[in-house]
Formats: sequence, structure tokens, C-alpha cells
Amino acid sequence: MRKTRLEAFSDGVLAIIITIMVLEMKVPHGESVGSLLPLAPVFLSYVLSFVYVGIYWNNHHHLLHMAGPVSGGSLWANLHLLFWLSLLPFATGWMGENHFAAAPSALYGAVLLMAAVAYWLLQRALIHAEGEGSALARALGNDWKGKVSPPIYALGIALSFHAAWMSQLLYAGAAMLWLVPDRRIERALRDLPG
Amino acid sequence: MRKTRLEAFSDGVLAIIITIMVLEMKVPHGESVGSLLPLAPVFLSYVLSFVYVGIYWNNHHHLLHMAGPVSGGSLWANLHLLFWLSLLPFATGWMGENHFAAAPSALYGAVLLMAAVAYWLLQRALIHAEGEGSALARALGNDWKGKVSPPIYALGIALSFHAAWMSQLLYAGAAMLWLVPDRRIERALRDLPG
Amino acid sequence: MRKTRLEAFSDGVLAIIITIMVLEMKVPHGESVGSLLPLAPVFLSYVLSFVYVGIYWNNHHHLLHMAGPVSGGSLWANLHLLFWLSLLPFATGWMGENHFAAAPSALYGAVLLMAAVAYWLLQRALIHAEGEGSALARALGNDWKGKVSPPIYALGIALSFHAAWMSQLLYAGAAMLWLVPDRRIERALRDLPG
Amino acid sequence: MRKTRLEAFSDGVLAIIITIMVLEMKVPHGESVGSLLPLAPVFLSYVLSFVYVGIYWNNHHHLLHMAGPVSGGSLWANLHLLFWLSLLPFATGWMGENHFAAAPSALYGAVLLMAAVAYWLLQRALIHAEGEGSALARALGNDWKGKVSPPIYALGIALSFHAAWMSQLLYAGAAMLWLVPDRRIERALRDLPG
Repeated sequence: MRKTRLEAFSDGVLAIIITIMVLEMKVPHGESVGSLLPLAPVFLSYVLSFVYVGIYWNNHHHLLHMAGPVSGGSLWANLHLLFWLSLLPFATGWMGENHFAAAPSALYGAVLLMAAVAYWLLQRALIHAEGEGSALARALGNDWKGKVSPPIYALGIALSFHAAWMSQLLYAGAAMLWLVPDRRIERALRDLPG
Repeated sequence: MRKTRLEAFSDGVLAIIITIMVLEMKVPHGESVGSLLPLAPVFLSYVLSFVYVGIYWNNHHHLLHMAGPVSGGSLWANLHLLFWLSLLPFATGWMGENHFAAAPSALYGAVLLMAAVAYWLLQRALIHAEGEGSALARALGNDWKGKVSPPIYALGIALSFHAAWMSQLLYAGAAMLWLVPDRRIERALRDLPG
Repeated sequence: MRKTRLEAFSDGVLAIIITIMVLEMKVPHGESVGSLLPLAPVFLSYVLSFVYVGIYWNNHHHLLHMAGPVSGGSLWANLHLLFWLSLLPFATGWMGENHFAAAPSALYGAVLLMAAVAYWLLQRALIHAEGEGSALARALGNDWKGKVSPPIYALGIALSFHAAWMSQLLYAGAAMLWLVPDRRIERALRDLPG
Repeated sequence: MRKTRLEAFSDGVLAIIITIMVLEMKVPHGESVGSLLPLAPVFLSYVLSFVYVGIYWNNHHHLLHMAGPVSGGSLWANLHLLFWLSLLPFATGWMGENHFAAAPSALYGAVLLMAAVAYWLLQRALIHAEGEGSALARALGNDWKGKVSPPIYALGIALSFHAAWMSQLLYAGAAMLWLVPDRRIERALRDLPG
């Protein structure tokens, strides 16, 4: 039951985050096709953020499905993750409005980095609540994606003041990594009873 | 369980989309009845979009009720559908503010078209996960509404630069098609055990 | 299952409506207590609308708990109700910003009236789906509140152009009627098995 | 079932409140790191409010898990709590924009105070519905946090016109109190059957 409500609350927050981001795309005043053009970078950053929230929702979904009992610490680790994700609409809007400028690109990377760290902490809290040797710990395995992503975001932040387009490339590339379904968890889920 | 959470997340996003659209109808500064008049086109486009989100929610609801297991691919096909629907408030606001002008009418049709394509892809993903000869594939039958709608939207886009009022008529007409309940699915549902 | 998802979607929409209304209360630029004063009418209309959405959520909750199978028609009757309630934030903001002026008070009453009609239609659709002599029909009994409210709203609309303060009094009075718990349904619920 | 829907609605409202607060942090127009600096107080007040909504969600979750049957009075006590929490985004935005000035700090404390009172009323309503000697009443024990918090908020309000920074300290300190998990309820939950 506790897990159910944790999922319901997270679903609610993620659903609102993903939808609220579109509000940063202000309706243009002109009525020509040309009046849409200045919105192109806002749109592109919206797409990137939509994909990222989608990835988090997807992974969160798998993670909690595999998890055992949910401790009080896990509840707060989950809220901590939602906190960083809630800053994504702000970072997305700032990056889009300034055409992927240096500082906004760095902030965007910082939000991604903190969310990745928060997700890792949530994993640890859930594994800790279940005890090592848990089904979740085994299913996550070496978790190479989780280990590789934070350095990519950090590199993106470092590069943003030199070549912001490379930061964007790194952020999009890390998203691509995650879009490929995690076969290990899928397989483990299939072997679960019930 | 996976299906339950997919439904819960989709319900959340659709509920927010349908409610956020009303925010495009800005409270007028005057206090007379006349100050409401300029909002009439915004209101009309809100009604149309409300009906469309309602149709998608309704169909989505039936579709998932009939569907078997939900694969990882289906999760992303679902997010893809939600992405296009999330652009509806923007397209609605732009069309309403510009009194159904050419370019906004075309964009509105494009969003409807892409959402229809995304819905079709979701159907395919769900049928694929269950295997052909599935209860879902049989219940959908020839799916004439799903086949007829995209050409109507495409025609609406094509006509928008010549006679935007005909685009509106086509969009409203396609909505009417869907409002009529799909007896085939209803009947199949009734025959289901449980 | 169908009922569960109808409730979940309605809960989502009602939760968003009730929370979005507060966004009409714009943060004042001054930092003195006095800069809050102009917001007093906006706050009062927010309170009234909050109570109304609360009443609808409460009644909707009881209604669906009592209802039998949910037909396709009921789904649309429910969406129709949500449509009118979704206009409440707009009507609330307009009424609050114009200090309960004539036209905004009339519009507010019209939204309440249409929502009441939509609720009545939803009741009919649910009873129709279950068949007359249903538990729901019996529990609703003569439904005097449902019969008395629409005329009160209509009177409020009629009076708004003469004495808008009387409209407010009528709207608040009708809310009071509903705040008193409906013992009949409570009692019927208690006698239900399960 | 009634409890389930009460939780679902509350989760929805809390999820929206927690996410809507971030909208008060307007995207800055400049693209330099420096253009973020004026947002620092808005960000800090966002963090504080996020933590408070998290605390309420957490406590609400435990409270309802322990609670027995939900009476009509409890439904309204719950809506009353949500009403005060819905004012948090407004109070947060006003306090953040005015750099923790006197009146906004007092209003923020007042909203916290009223929410604490509303939470206490909700506890009473749930205990009353179950009858004294209920599992909930025993698990809450002497509820020292619930008794200590309102005076802290009241002190914060009183101090805000003399030294607003001390109000902030008190509000943050009270949050800290709640962040420490309530072992009593945790223990009682563990002993519950099912």
C-alpha cells in the first residue's frame, strides 16, 4: 500500500512536470508561420526534457516494481529526486529562450546531474531497506548506465562555457543511452512470480 | 500492475492537458459582457480541444482495458502519444487568439494528425506485445475510424491556407465521428470474463 | 475497473481545477500588508469556488460509490460535468478581479447552473445504465438539493445586474445547503454489503 | 474504497501544489549566471515550501494508513487542510520576491499555522470516526511535534516585523523537527497485521 501511494504521488508530480514544461512555450502574437520560428529552440529543449522525464518515469516504474518494502528514508529519497526534476521546466525554459547559451546549458546539465545523483540515492535507499542480496540489487547488476551518465553530464557542464553545442550533444547522447530498454531488468521481471 | 501505472500516468497527463488549456483563456480586464466577446474564438477552440482530449481519454481507456501485457515499447509508444497531445494547449491557444487564421489552423491539424499516428502506433505496439490473433486485434476489427481520421486531418491542413473555416469543419466533423460510441468494442468488452 | 479509472481521471481534473484557481491570485509587487488588501475579493471568490469544487468532489465520490456499471454515455456525461467545472477558475478570476461586478457575477452563476445541470445528467446516465429501481435511484430519493440549487443559481443570475451582492449571497447560500452532509446517502452506504 | 479515493485526491492536490510553486520562479531574461542571482531568495523559499509539502504528504500518508473508517466530516477536514496548503505557492512567491520582508514572512507563518491547525483537526476527525481508544489515537501518542509546531509558527509571525530572519529560522527549524522520522508510528505500523 505504501508503495502504491509512493508511485501514485510520483506519477502525479512527473505528469505535472512533463505537462507544465509546455507552458514555457508561449503562444506567439503573430499569425504567420514565421512567428513560430523563434520558438524552435524552446521546442527543441522541450522535446529533450520530455524525453528525460519519460526516461525517469520509465526507470522509476521499473525500479519500484522490483523494490521490496519502502522505508521512511526511501520516501524522502524519492521526494529529493522529484525536487530536482521539478527544476527541469525552469532550466528548460531558460535554455530554450536563450538559444542554448552557455550559462543556461550549464544549469540544465547541473539539474540532470543532481537528478541522476538523486536517482542513485533512491536506488541505494530501496536496496538498503530490502537488505543486500535483494532481488533489486541483483537485477540492477553493475548498473553501467547509472555510472556512465553523471560523468557525461559533468563533462557537458564543463564544456558549456566553451562550446555549448557539445553540451547539448552530450545531454542528447545520454538520453539515447537510456532509451534503449534495459534488458536485464525486463528479463528479471519476466522471471518474477505473479 | 504495469498496465495500472501506465493508465494512472496517462490519466494524470490527460487531466492536466485538459485543464491547462483553460489557462489560455485569459481573464479579461473589463467587467462588461462585451469584454467577453473577443474571447469567443478562444472559447470555441477550447471546446473543440476539450472534446478531442475527452475522445482520446475514452479511446485510450477502452484500448488499455482490452490490451494484454504492456511491453517496454508500448510504454514509449504511449509517451509518444502524450507528447503530441501535450502540444494541444499551445496549438489551441494560437488558433483561438488568431481567430482561426491559416497557419494556426494548419498547426492544429498537424498536432491532431501526429496524435492520430501516435495512437495507431500505440495500438500496433500493444497488439505486437500480445501477438496477432489477440483479443485486441479482433476487437479493433477494421478500425475504420482510425483509418479515416488521418486523411481528414491532412485535408484540413491542406485547406487551411485557402479556406480555414473548412479546416475547422473537418476537425469538428472528425470529432463527431469519434463521439459516437464504438459498439464493437463495447460488445466485445461485455463478452469478456471478469 | 472502468469505474476506477473514471474516478481517477475525475479526481485528477478536480484536483487540478481546485489548485489552478489559486494561480489567479497574482503575487502582489509591494511588500506591505496593505498590498494584500486589493486581493481580498479575489481571495473571497477563491474560497467560494474552493468550497464548490470540494462539494462536487464529495458528491461525485458518493455518487460513483453508489453507482452500478458505467456505460459509455456516463463517461461522456462525466466529461461534460468536468467541462463546466473547468470554467470555474476563469469565472472565479473574472469575478474576483472586478470586485463582484454585474456581468462576472452572472457568468459565475451561469457556470454553477450548467455544472448543476451536468451533474443531474450524470445522475440520470448512471441510473439509466443500472436500470430504474436501482440502488442509486433509491438512495438519491427525491434529491431535493439537486432540485432546489438550479433555481437558486438562476435567481442569482437574474439579480446580478440589479444587486450583485444578492447573487453572491445566493451562491454562498446554495453552497451551505450542500455542506450539510446528506444523511440519506450516508445511511444507505452504511447498509451496503462490503 | 472511500479512503483510497481520499488519498488519491489528496495526492493529486499535493502533487500539483508542490509543482506549481516552481512556476513562481520566473525564467530570467538575461543569459548570464548573474541573472540567476536575484532568484536566490525565490529559490530558497521554494526549497523550504517543497520540504513542507513533502512533510505534509509524508505525515498524511502515515495518518491515513493508520486511520479507520473515513467519515463525511473527515472528508471536509481533509479539504480544509488542502485549502491552507493551496495558499502556500502564493505565500512562497510573495516571500521570495520580497527577499523575506516582514509582512510576507508573517503571512507565510500564518499559512503554516493554519495548515498545522487543519492537520490537527483532521487527526481529531479521524480519531472521532474510529472512536477513542483507536489504533490511530494510540499510535499518535502525545504527538509532541503536533503540539510544539503551532507555537513555533506563532512566534515566527510575532517576530517577523522585528527580525524577519528569525522567523525564517523558526520555520526552517520546525521543518527539521518533522524531517526526523516518527519512530512511534513506524513501529506501530510494523506491528499491524497485513
